[in-house]
Order: sequence, then C-alpha cells, then structure tokens
Amino acid sequence: MKALVLRSPNQLPEYTDTDTPIPLPGQKLVQLHAAALNHRDVYMTQGLYSRIRVPCILGSDGAGMCDERRVLLYPALEWGEQTAAQGKDFRVLGMPDDGTFAEHICMPSSYVFPMPDHLNWEQAAALPLAGLTAWRVLFSRCRLKSGEKVLISGIGGGVALTAMQLAIAAGAEVFVTSGSEEKIEKAIALGAGAGANYRNEGWDKQLKQDAGGFDVIVDSAAGDGFSLFPALCNPGARIGVYGGSLGKVNGLSMQPVFWKQISILGSTMGSPEEFDAMLRFVGAHRIVPVVDTVFPLEEGAAAFERMDRGDQFGKIVLKIA
Amino acid sequence: MKALVLRSPNQLPEYTDTDTPIPLPGQKLVQLHAAALNHRDVYMTQGLYSRIRVPCILGSDGAGMCDERRVLLYPALEWGEQTAAQGKDFRVLGMPDDGTFAEHICMPSSYVFPMPDHLNWEQAAALPLAGLTAWRVLFSRCRLKSGEKVLISGIGGGVALTAMQLAIAAGAEVFVTSGSEEKIEKAIALGAGAGANYRNEGWDKQLKQDAGGFDVIVDSAAGDGFSLFPALCNPGARIGVYGGSLGKVNGLSMQPVFWKQISILGSTMGSPEEFDAMLRFVGAHRIVPVVDTVFPLEEGAAAFERMDRGDQFGKIVLKIA
Repeated sequence: MKALVLRSPNQLPEYTDTDTPIPLPGQKLVQLHAAALNHRDVYMTQGLYSRIRVPCILGSDGAGMCDERRVLLYPALEWGEQTAAQGKDFRVLGMPDDGTFAEHICMPSSYVFPMPDHLNWEQAAALPLAGLTAWRVLFSRCRLKSGEKVLISGIGGGVALTAMQLAIAAGAEVFVTSGSEEKIEKAIALGAGAGANYRNEGWDKQLKQDAGGFDVIVDSAAGDGFSLFPALCNPGARIGVYGGSLGKVNGLSMQPVFWKQISILGSTMGSPEEFDAMLRFVGAHRIVPVVDTVFPLEEGAAAFERMDRGDQFGKIVLKIA
Repeated sequence: MKALVLRSPNQLPEYTDTDTPIPLPGQKLVQLHAAALNHRDVYMTQGLYSRIRVPCILGSDGAGMCDERRVLLYPALEWGEQTAAQGKDFRVLGMPDDGTFAEHICMPSSYVFPMPDHLNWEQAAALPLAGLTAWRVLFSRCRLKSGEKVLISGIGGGVALTAMQLAIAAGAEVFVTSGSEEKIEKAIALGAGAGANYRNEGWDKQLKQDAGGFDVIVDSAAGDGFSLFPALCNPGARIGVYGGSLGKVNGLSMQPVFWKQISILGSTMGSPEEFDAMLRFVGAHRIVPVVDTVFPLEEGAAAFERMDRGDQFGKIVLKIA
C-alpha cells in the first residue's frame, strides 16, 4: 500500500510503498479515505519529540471503510481504566504505532466508531483528535453549561475551532482571540460573538468591557499572556489548558485565582467513551468541522509545510482514495 | 464592653471601652470567651488592606456563650446563593463589620453554631476561619479521598495545620514542607508522614523519591516555588491554592499540567453549609486545633506582634473572659 513514512526524526515523511498491515485477533482492517494533520505530526519531523521510532507511518486522524460501514477512528490507544487521567500505556495514534497517513490501518475493533452521517470523508477526518480534545476540555474538565460565556484563545487551530463549534452548539456565547483580524472575522462568520486581537495593546481590558467576564476560557498557548486570564474571569470560572505553545507562564497572580474560586484545568485527549459522546453530539447538532485545505496523500510533504507555517484556519486534510 | 478597636489603618488596635452592641431582629448577642488572630487582622494594621473603615473591632474567629449554649461563629457574612463562589456581598468578619476581639458581638442567628463538645474555649476559637478554609480547599475543591497522598506547604500556619489534621482524619497520608526543621518535627509528631525543608537545594526531587507522587497539594505561598509542584503530582492530581504570600508565580510549565490532567484550584473560606460540615467532622474525629500561644485580650498588641513575626506554630489566641 501507499503511505507517508517517517524514516528519520529530522525530515519530512516520504510517500512510498509499504506492506499492507494484517489484522491481529480483535483488530479490524480499515481502508482509509481521508486523514488530517496535527501539530504533533509536524513536531515528529522536527526532532521535537522524544520517543521516535523509525520507520513509522504518521497520522492520528483517519476516516474510512470497515465492514462496509463508514467509520472514524479513536485517535489513540490504551487510555486506561481511570476517567481522571490516561494510564501509563496511553499513546496517541501515529507514533510509535503506525498511523493514518496510509491506505490501510489495523485498529482494535473497540476503537472503530460509526462516522456521523452528515459529513464527507474530508470533514470527518478533520474531527477525531481535535474534537476529542475540545470535548474533554469543554465538557469533562470545564463542565460548560448552556448560557455561559466562553473565551477561546488562538482561534484557527483545529482544537480551538472545534471547541468554538461545540460550545456554540451547547448554548454558550463564544468569544475568540487571535493575532489575525482575518481569522477573527472568519470565526465571527462561524458564530463567535466577537473577537480580540491580542497584538493590540489593552485588548484584554477592551474585551472585558465588551463581553463582561467569562465563565470558561480555553487556551493552548500558556506563556506570559496566560496571566491576563484570571482578571477576565467571572467568579467560579474554569480555565481549560490543553497546550503550552508559547512556553512557561510568568507573572501569574494567585489572588484573583483564589478569591474568584477559579479552576485551572489541564486537559489532553480523552477516553473512547468521551470520543463516542463527542461523535453523538456532533451528529445530533450536525456540526461540520472546518477544513482549511485538502492535499492528496502523495503531496503530504506540502501539507506538512503548510501546517508548519501556522497560517491555516481549520484542519489540513489528506485525501487518500 | 472592652474591645480591641482599630482606630487608624497603620497602627495596632487599642484595648478600650466601647458600647456593647444591641442585637437587631434576627441577630443573637454572643458573649465571647476566646478569639483568634488571622494574617488578615495584621494586614489591617499595616495598611495592606484596601477598604478600611475605622473605628472597627477586628477579629474573625470567636467562641462564646449564646442562649446558655457554647457556640462558635461562622467567620464571615453573606456567602450568597452559589456553592461555586461567594457573592458580591460576602465579607470576612472583623472589617468592615465589627469582629470578635471584644466581650460581645451580635451575629445573625443562622451564623451561630454549636461548639464541638471536646474543645475548650481557646481550642474552639482557633478553629473557624482556618478550619473552614482548610475544609473547602481539601474537600469541596480538591475532593480529597481516603488513601490519597497529600502535600501541605508552609506547615505552621493555622490553615496548613488544620488541613493536615483534617486530611489525616480523612485517611490521607500527609507530607509537609517548611523552612523550619523544628516545625517539620512538630508536624511529624502530630501525624505527618515526613517533611521537606524547602531551603534545602533539591528538596523537591528528594521528596518525590521519598514519598512518591502526590494526589493533592495544598499551598498558600504561590511565588516561584509553585512551579515545582506539577512535577510532584500524580496523574489527576489537584493543587489547592488559598493564598499567595510569596507573590506571583513564574516559570510554570503547562506541559505536566495538561499531560497529567492536573487541576489548580483557587479556594477561600466557604459557605455556612461547609462550616457546619467541618464542625461535625471535627467533632466526630475529636480533632483539637493547635494553639500556639494565648494572650489576654488586654495584651492584644503583643499577640499582633507575635503574628507579624511569623514564627508561630498554630493559632494565636486571645482569652476574653
């Protein structure tokens, strides 16, 4: 079969022929029709990931056919028994296990889920990792309720956009931040109430004035800007954190955190049960993930380069068949 | 009646005669027998509190007689309707409302609770604010369960010590930190498993090696040392924060926070319902608050000076009658 294979930690994956996998007992062979990129995949090609095994087929997100059904794959393996946190054997799909940037993949049958009917292959492939991460941080961790006000930072990435869509569907009023006016406009077109450009001096005070306080903030940047969030919070607010792309947090005053009873809640991907709940919610609300661009599998290197530039709005998808 | 009255924000309170208060409808007159100091009282005398009204009788903690019963006072007013956070009208007892450093106080009858039978006046007066704060952070916020491992930083203060006693009574294994070997030894004598001196280089790695990871960490210091906590945490751990005496947090990496699904939970005092639950727990487990020293009310200035030095172990109590 054809696949994008990582042969060395410091280069782009290679489009090449490799053996079609054979399912073990308890596994299903899935014929993939589309896959999607995540930042994790790019980090693998830049030596920014510690436990690289090569050769390895990258990719966590995949949609395809299995037993004549359209299916979506849980984007990880071995969450474990606890809902509070993943177990020691947890791993994201696509390293060290072979992933979805290929014509076929073998997956434990319990990780193969029906694909929401209203989506096409590219839209469906855009959903798993971003949707699961957004679901867990919003609902399992921050316990978002209808009518609450939500701020989502760095709109444009897959998790942030999906979190925005899920929160709007759940009845929340959603505001966004970005460094790009164009992304803010696109988010408003998708249903955000308003947005703030964090490159503008005093954006936080202006946003607080426009929006009032927030009940839930969802962030994956961390860095020094994180310290502005508690002042934007309502009493009892939750700040969900699923990344730290801008580095360590400095200058964080705990006074508003304790006085307002704020919760800062770390979150990653979730369990298969959370994945199932997310898919049902997406189906019931007919949410369509935002696709930035679609590349054929053989042009995977170009997809990686677009992801690395970071100016996408929505998911970068690979069309496989 | 006699009382310790703050006459100016930048001086110690004065032991003086003042009018005995007269209960309004719905209030009870309580004859106080003992009261206890909190850091808040000292801040009031140092201009470190923004909304000072003078003259005002200080003091949040009080035990006394009411309707021929021994009673303890809820140390605040107007928590409000929400369990998640206090409402806008919430205020700690003892500023701007007159507090407990006096022979009498008028309190709404719903804030007057039966005193646990096994305590004397001084021990009981040591309980309210520290016990309520410790209860909320441990049980309402961090949801401590029996068998979990707990780290309590800065042992010696009233909240930290009471949190240690509550956690041990709840079946947790408790470790402490302090900058004083003597305080660590005293904590071990009271049931702590072990302690670490945070003045020693590498104390965090040594503690992790000795104790394994922690499920709950309780802290009121914040500052740069806070950033060491996530590495000490087990997956799914909760870090409860009820103060920030060492200033802003710097150098906090969010990677362990999200990867381990850590929750950083701000917490203050609690509601009357939490106060009632705490008193019942203290009664059932016959927990005796640690009293550092007892001063007669007329020597209140000396009690304030001892609190300001910060070398106490347990509560500083005023004996009133």
